[in-house]
Amino acid sequence: MDCCVIPLRHGGLSLVQTTDFFYPLVEDPYMMGRIACANVLSDLYAMGITECDNMLMLLSVSQKMNDKDRERVMPLMIQGFRDAAEEGGTSVTGGQTVINPWIIVGGVASVVCQPNEFIMPDGAVPGDVLVLTKPLGTQVAVNAHQWLDQTERWNKIKLVVTREEVKEAYQEAMFSMATLNRTAAGLMHKFQAHAATDVTGFGLLGHANNLAAQQRNEVAFVIHNLPIIAKMAAISKACGNLFNLIQGTSAETSGGLLVCLPREQAAKFCSEMKSQSSAVGGQGAAGGAWIIGIVEKGDRRARIIDKPRIIEVPPRGSQAANQDNNSASPAPSPNLS
Amino acid sequence: MDCCVIPLRHGGLSLVQTTDFFYPLVEDPYMMGRIACANVLSDLYAMGITECDNMLMLLSVSQKMNDKDRERVMPLMIQGFRDAAEEGGTSVTGGQTVINPWIIVGGVASVVCQPNEFIMPDGAVPGDVLVLTKPLGTQVAVNAHQWLDQTERWNKIKLVVTREEVKEAYQEAMFSMATLNRTAAGLMHKFQAHAATDVTGFGLLGHANNLAAQQRNEVAFVIHNLPIIAKMAAISKACGNLFNLIQGTSAETSGGLLVCLPREQAAKFCSEMKSQSSAVGGQGAAGGAWIIGIVEKGDRRARIIDKPRIIEVPPRGSQAANQDNNSASPAPSPNLS
Repeated sequence: MDCCVIPLRHGGLSLVQTTDFFYPLVEDPYMMGRIACANVLSDLYAMGITECDNMLMLLSVSQKMNDKDRERVMPLMIQGFRDAAEEGGTSVTGGQTVINPWIIVGGVASVVCQPNEFIMPDGAVPGDVLVLTKPLGTQVAVNAHQWLDQTERWNKIKLVVTREEVKEAYQEAMFSMATLNRTAAGLMHKFQAHAATDVTGFGLLGHANNLAAQQRNEVAFVIHNLPIIAKMAAISKACGNLFNLIQGTSAETSGGLLVCLPREQAAKFCSEMKSQSSAVGGQGAAGGAWIIGIVEKGDRRARIIDKPRIIEVPPRGSQAANQDNNSASPAPSPNLS
Repeated sequence: MDCCVIPLRHGGLSLVQTTDFFYPLVEDPYMMGRIACANVLSDLYAMGITECDNMLMLLSVSQKMNDKDRERVMPLMIQGFRDAAEEGGTSVTGGQTVINPWIIVGGVASVVCQPNEFIMPDGAVPGDVLVLTKPLGTQVAVNAHQWLDQTERWNKIKLVVTREEVKEAYQEAMFSMATLNRTAAGLMHKFQAHAATDVTGFGLLGHANNLAAQQRNEVAFVIHNLPIIAKMAAISKACGNLFNLIQGTSAETSGGLLVCLPREQAAKFCSEMKSQSSAVGGQGAAGGAWIIGIVEKGDRRARIIDKPRIIEVPPRGSQAANQDNNSASPAPSPNLS
């Protein structure tokens, strides 16, 4: 499970909590703080929990930073983390900071819940539909962005992508990773989700496999479609499947929720994700939603079909996205700008 | 405060939680795990909380370790952490592990409490007595032990201490740091403690100052006695007060509780600490207890008097300790052996 669920001594309540920490992967410290917070909260959201009672922040300052860099970078990272926590309706009231060779950022999210507040991730039934709420390809985008300054690497992918496209994809990945999965968590209740997980280090297929393995019923998850940040599939292919993106095992950071929904609810879930996303501040600000597969009878494993359909997801704010959205001038996101 | 206390949406309950992580400071990985766990739980115990609903473990494996060392060291450290958690009546159900240049070990402790389960650390009144439940000097002992192999350093202290005494002090420090403050937390309720904190990185005086600053009444803490692991005061003096041990600012790891007790309760608190300590497995296994000072009217600060009395605390199991205890053969501690 994405969280631990501890039955408490008090009136049927449970303590649900999770922790996560890692190393910076984007250059903007403020956005990095937001991403770290979104990533921690995501484990609660994957259980359909929309509230968080408290967060702790885990930080390390790099011993290799000089005072000036430290004073410039760390407050921004902390502010990003706090702002994302506030957007999640919670706050950071404690934590620990140490000195370390590398910068570390992460946290702990805890909530005390009644049983109806969370959805145990084990109720998938044959006939369910699988929905994913953020596009894949964050790792590829972050790496490709670093390769802009590495001639040898860049030469491998420059035939399939422009510098501008890489920059747009990197921006899209950064915004996507900083997006809370909270809207999706709320809609899991409204549309009676049967199970969910969030997609992170093991990639879509890894987490789909974990989720399938936990199901009470003998089911299998079959994935037909892969929504991917535009051009990232081409990059992954151009460097000899270095990331295994199409194979489903490219790591994601603060990825979307993979949700099992009753067949008749899936389309409504997706359309409401879209409309809420526009409502909270422009295209994509609450994540997206794509139907990516189905639940069949099976041996509690997940697989991607041969030649899955790649859904190229245009960066928000790009011309393609605007056309796609039938909106000439989407409002900028107040949460992410 | 040592923990954050979050009022919950449910029936007067509060979520109390704390996190701490640091780098190994003793050579024995199993004991290091125990110390890390005792150190995390100590923040709950400082608030008089004796139960913990859940722990998460935070770990990093050093990238500089080879596979063999990793497989030998990390399981022992994890086991030590788990065993100490079990001794605290709780368990570890989650966490996060990363790769890092340095080893990190720590955790998160969380509990959902009714208001009568914790003691807010702000009720000291003039006339109260200050009690400390572990001897000081852990940092000095750990450093002196490293100096056994550093001729230049060793030469500075060899006139005041023998190699054997350093080894005994190191053992004592290790056992002391691995000792849970849980017994003391329970006795805080029985003897109506007015406030408490645990002594860690800022040393006795640093934490006494923090505690004094939080008091509702205008009080000052005056410290007369310093219980110190035997010979550590002499070592600190011999190296030119490098550690500021007598000045009260030598860092401690997983130190004792500093407790403000009503004058008429302090002696009973100390004697019960002693008898419970013997009961749970031999001398010192639940910590000790020393009256170290008094609470006066004042400006919410703490100070140590000129020429405080140094109480030399003999290592448990040493001849001096046995005589002191009137026990020819104290039972070995089942928890710490």
